[in-house]
Amino acid sequence: MTNAADFDRSVCPTPRQDHERVLLGHGSGGRLSADLVGRVFLPEFGNEVLSALEDAATLTIDPRGEATRDQANRIAFTTDSFVVKPLFFPGGDIGKLAVHGTVNDLAVSGAQPLYLSAAFILEEGFQIDPLRRIVRSMRQACAAAGVALVTGDTKVVDRGKGDQIFITTTGIGVHRVDRDLSIHNARPGDAVIVSGTIGDHGITIMSTREGIEFETALESDTAPLNGLVEAMLEACPTIRAMRDPTRGGVSSTLNELAVASHVGIVLDEASLPVKPAVHSACEMLGLDPLYVANEGKLIAVVPGDRAEPLVEVMRRHPLGRDAAVIGRVVSEHPAMVVLRNAIGGQRVVSLLAGEQLPRIC
Amino acid sequence: MTNAADFDRSVCPTPRQDHERVLLGHGSGGRLSADLVGRVFLPEFGNEVLSALEDAATLTIDPRGEATRDQANRIAFTTDSFVVKPLFFPGGDIGKLAVHGTVNDLAVSGAQPLYLSAAFILEEGFQIDPLRRIVRSMRQACAAAGVALVTGDTKVVDRGKGDQIFITTTGIGVHRVDRDLSIHNARPGDAVIVSGTIGDHGITIMSTREGIEFETALESDTAPLNGLVEAMLEACPTIRAMRDPTRGGVSSTLNELAVASHVGIVLDEASLPVKPAVHSACEMLGLDPLYVANEGKLIAVVPGDRAEPLVEVMRRHPLGRDAAVIGRVVSEHPAMVVLRNAIGGQRVVSLLAGEQLPRIC
Repeated sequence: MTNAADFDRSVCPTPRQDHERVLLGHGSGGRLSADLVGRVFLPEFGNEVLSALEDAATLTIDPRGEATRDQANRIAFTTDSFVVKPLFFPGGDIGKLAVHGTVNDLAVSGAQPLYLSAAFILEEGFQIDPLRRIVRSMRQACAAAGVALVTGDTKVVDRGKGDQIFITTTGIGVHRVDRDLSIHNARPGDAVIVSGTIGDHGITIMSTREGIEFETALESDTAPLNGLVEAMLEACPTIRAMRDPTRGGVSSTLNELAVASHVGIVLDEASLPVKPAVHSACEMLGLDPLYVANEGKLIAVVPGDRAEPLVEVMRRHPLGRDAAVIGRVVSEHPAMVVLRNAIGGQRVVSLLAGEQLPRIC
Repeated sequence: MTNAADFDRSVCPTPRQDHERVLLGHGSGGRLSADLVGRVFLPEFGNEVLSALEDAATLTIDPRGEATRDQANRIAFTTDSFVVKPLFFPGGDIGKLAVHGTVNDLAVSGAQPLYLSAAFILEEGFQIDPLRRIVRSMRQACAAAGVALVTGDTKVVDRGKGDQIFITTTGIGVHRVDRDLSIHNARPGDAVIVSGTIGDHGITIMSTREGIEFETALESDTAPLNGLVEAMLEACPTIRAMRDPTRGGVSSTLNELAVASHVGIVLDEASLPVKPAVHSACEMLGLDPLYVANEGKLIAVVPGDRAEPLVEVMRRHPLGRDAAVIGRVVSEHPAMVVLRNAIGGQRVVSLLAGEQLPRIC
């Protein structure tokens, strides 16, 4: 899953006051997550690969034991735990999410996802029937994404010490071509593209929890993005960076990108694709769709003159039908994301401080 | 971690009655674990690699997208969740265990462990200070084992929906030589070796929980086995199989081996290395050390005439000082492990049905 709570992509902000205990917001993908990673994890694990803060780690494996930059040995490696609640929701379930989340982290790093592992932490008393449904759903998701689940583990914790089921998936992919996709690559003049409507997953989970119904059916957008990414990279090998804006939403992804590349980003509010149901729900719940999680969307940064042809290609793919250019990279206000509305007003889109929607993935 | 709840090594027993809910025993590494894996996971995920039931999956990664047996591309891949309670215990903590467990699964598959990922599920309210200690301990364990932690994730669940901290580690190793270690390889005439005293980890955890004190200090044996394995494979390239007897203990490992290789195993009770403190604790608690978890021990199966020289080599390594031949592989009673005592009596050492010590790792 891509968000600021991934060690490999968190932006470490300025030091903050010491939080004595873990807060729900530490898992939000926002500023608190970045804070925890920056204060606790990076100081210990800050090796070269981890500190690069990318979505998936890129590793070289040389059977002769020597360091190598040989692209033939470049593999991508990423992990995520899934604790979404409820386990089943319109458009998906925790199993599907666990497969797609890891497949997508590999895909947006430019790698072809190949193998997954899955580790289950089950709560004593969890029913076998939903477990079976989740496992079946994972199998189907693996088949659809073209990956093989090759190893796994199961642990059981006593009743009241877990919450039905948590799943951790880890993925291995291979970099077939020597691409250099990185959130450090954005440059002024680049365009920012989103592959479709934003906020669908987060609002689906939220409204399922709260029992809110919409006039039109709303579903999670959970989907494997590797096919779309492949079509995009073929059409536009000069893509600078890709990310899937999950926990913390589009705003977190763009803030991390702006910080990592030391550039400003200007978003055009009118161009943001948002479903009417998501729009209404956000108004009702007081949420901003820019902060709501997506599970089958990606953000791409490309040279400005390549944006429109790429969007055309994306729109021909089922998962890119609503693709749109939503902003541009500028040299002004580095490390800052700004949203410009229809009448020319603008506001800063900052990293969310705490927790908006806990356990969204 | 090696145990029957790993998908990749579970032996699927004959069908049993349907358990409607997850039981603590489903995480025991014994018969119930194998049952769950056999009934729920394997039917869905039963691809070629997963069905081989090995400790770590062996994968081939060919950048040209073709299937290959080229050993240059053979990597090992394994995952485990850690839910041990208490988090800190004599000789280690959950972080150390999480690193060693995955390093050891790679090592006993014959691979050199290279890279780890770590995914944390934190309970809201967990203190930052122990989290920091755990992370530091993981860093030290990684350094000692010569592996790099390169990617990670953090999720937070609401208070009462987790238990302080769960850690899932996933590891990648490389097969430098074309070895064929497998639990399917044992043959009559082979010897069974254990690298040291058994039951230390399980009894340490149990006595820490119960507040039992011993006259002599007892510590968990948690340790990275890759150095010992390297020395062993160099001295004896004909080793048939290795396993680390964690959850479910030596008995689970040997039962899986006997089933997979369709051979019988005869253990010699007098030769089992057991510390006096472990022996007394087992008597007091009514436990059998053969079923108690180890976290820094391995079982090796080697051709009979290679056993003594190999044990000599092992004893020169700090983690193999108490290495001993504990039994032999026979053609009689296939798929069955038998323990022979000093006066010639014998009993069947079966797979433990349920849960002996929950949350031991």
